[in-house]
Amino acid sequence: MSCFGKRTWDPKGKHCYVTGGSTGLGLALSTLLVQQGADVSIVARNEKNLKAAIEKLETVRQSKDQKFAYYSYSLTSARESQEALQAVIAGHNGETPDGVFLCAGGSKPKFFVEMSGEELVQGMDMGYWVQAWTAWAASKEMARTRKKGKICFVSSTLGYMSLIGYASYSPAKHALRGLADTLRFELQLYNIDVQIFFPCTMYTPGYEEENKTKPKITLKLEESDSGLTAEQAAHAMLAGIKDHHSHITGDWITTVFRASTKGASPGRFFLKDWALNIFGCIALPIWRMTVDREINGHVAEHETYLEERGLRA
Amino acid sequence: MSCFGKRTWDPKGKHCYVTGGSTGLGLALSTLLVQQGADVSIVARNEKNLKAAIEKLETVRQSKDQKFAYYSYSLTSARESQEALQAVIAGHNGETPDGVFLCAGGSKPKFFVEMSGEELVQGMDMGYWVQAWTAWAASKEMARTRKKGKICFVSSTLGYMSLIGYASYSPAKHALRGLADTLRFELQLYNIDVQIFFPCTMYTPGYEEENKTKPKITLKLEESDSGLTAEQAAHAMLAGIKDHHSHITGDWITTVFRASTKGASPGRFFLKDWALNIFGCIALPIWRMTVDREINGHVAEHETYLEERGLRA
Repeated sequence: MSCFGKRTWDPKGKHCYVTGGSTGLGLALSTLLVQQGADVSIVARNEKNLKAAIEKLETVRQSKDQKFAYYSYSLTSARESQEALQAVIAGHNGETPDGVFLCAGGSKPKFFVEMSGEELVQGMDMGYWVQAWTAWAASKEMARTRKKGKICFVSSTLGYMSLIGYASYSPAKHALRGLADTLRFELQLYNIDVQIFFPCTMYTPGYEEENKTKPKITLKLEESDSGLTAEQAAHAMLAGIKDHHSHITGDWITTVFRASTKGASPGRFFLKDWALNIFGCIALPIWRMTVDREINGHVAEHETYLEERGLRA
Repeated sequence: MSCFGKRTWDPKGKHCYVTGGSTGLGLALSTLLVQQGADVSIVARNEKNLKAAIEKLETVRQSKDQKFAYYSYSLTSARESQEALQAVIAGHNGETPDGVFLCAGGSKPKFFVEMSGEELVQGMDMGYWVQAWTAWAASKEMARTRKKGKICFVSSTLGYMSLIGYASYSPAKHALRGLADTLRFELQLYNIDVQIFFPCTMYTPGYEEENKTKPKITLKLEESDSGLTAEQAAHAMLAGIKDHHSHITGDWITTVFRASTKGASPGRFFLKDWALNIFGCIALPIWRMTVDREINGHVAEHETYLEERGLRA
């Protein structure tokens, strides 16, 4: 039983569909789900990674009845997301998944004035649509087949706050929060649970990728951040999923941001949230002023950067 | 002087670019800006509305030197938004606008499982991109020409919270918050002020349009909401713009949501925000539970609705 008296969600025997399941958080979550007795279908783009992931899942198999399957799709369009879901369903005796876990995504930080239109669109595709389309396809399917399922989005600490360099990513992660909060209300009509996880920095292949384009000032501001391994993040995510938390966090800082930006979203323990919120009211403005000071101290260096790139008339 | 000792922003003699300036909030804001001595360039799609708007602006002209201009563009693509901005600049002796006020937008509420892929994309276009593209084009231009300008987005109460029926709109309005908070940090590098307005229901042509597709349960939940006229909203928006508020609200309920979801975003008077936040911590969960109860009470009626539309297997 969870603390609210609702029965804990048990992965055992459930059909779990994990997007981005071949690496990072998605693979770590799939591994935990398999260890707890679930059938797992994973979707990602890279076929080689998918095969390697399935091999890894086989090593933690709990029973010979568990089914694992993989499908290669890109998921950033409505059509492909629908096709991927139909493939997942067809590969599991026509059964709509019990749980849909949206771990696909990526980020490419850069200065806003340097971004191309394509990069901005890609930011929304890889931060928002890659999850929204599957949620949309799955909601329709769950409503149609009366499956009392579960959908869990993966946002980011940057879905609660923002930082210089993330103009293509933070909006997408905020949008996921808006979508999850809307659907938490709406999908009650079909008995579908909607949850959303806000991980902090995760040391995954995606993190190494984003650091390649990240502005120097952003790297400096993140210098003192501590992150989680994909396994630690997956543990926090699954614990929140099982306990039916609407907004799931896995680290202390993001939990302060959750409590300080809660609004009408469901919280956790009232007094703890209250204390974190009060702490945030004092600490977060101080943090923001520190960041403002760092950015203002970066102006002269940035001027040279802009001039070298012909961004000043 | 504003309360923080920073000089109040004065529209007099400024070149103001207002998107969506032909009707509703955009026209009301343009009218106020003209009354306070600004030059105003408006962009919208409908040429007839644009001409009528310019005629209205002429009636409140303060001096013969004020310049008014209109341009017809759609603004939902990067290219058109850049072209519109270039037309606005060319029409004003090559001068980059001092202020860019992003009033264009629209919403089409509907049940998520009934939305088409096109409607979801349109929701993001009309809620987010229609403003993000102009902000992107203007940021590049202001940075290039060293214009110490101002960019003000228009989100919605639904950028702070959400409600059943708004799965194509609320994510877009949350995304605008993420973008504004990112750019508030980042565009300090170029001395560009970034602000964002969160209006509640406004009785505009857009509101009449959205009520045409709005689910019955959403209409019922909004029954007791009070709204603002476009003129009232424009007054609140301009007051916040002049006083350099990062997050601007024009009604009491949205102000409670602002204070309760503040996180690291800049607030207003510390003690007032604190009191509103504490009030929100108690009142908003109660509001949410009331909404949950209404939605759960709607299940039986919704079942019939779904069956009639063939949305149940």
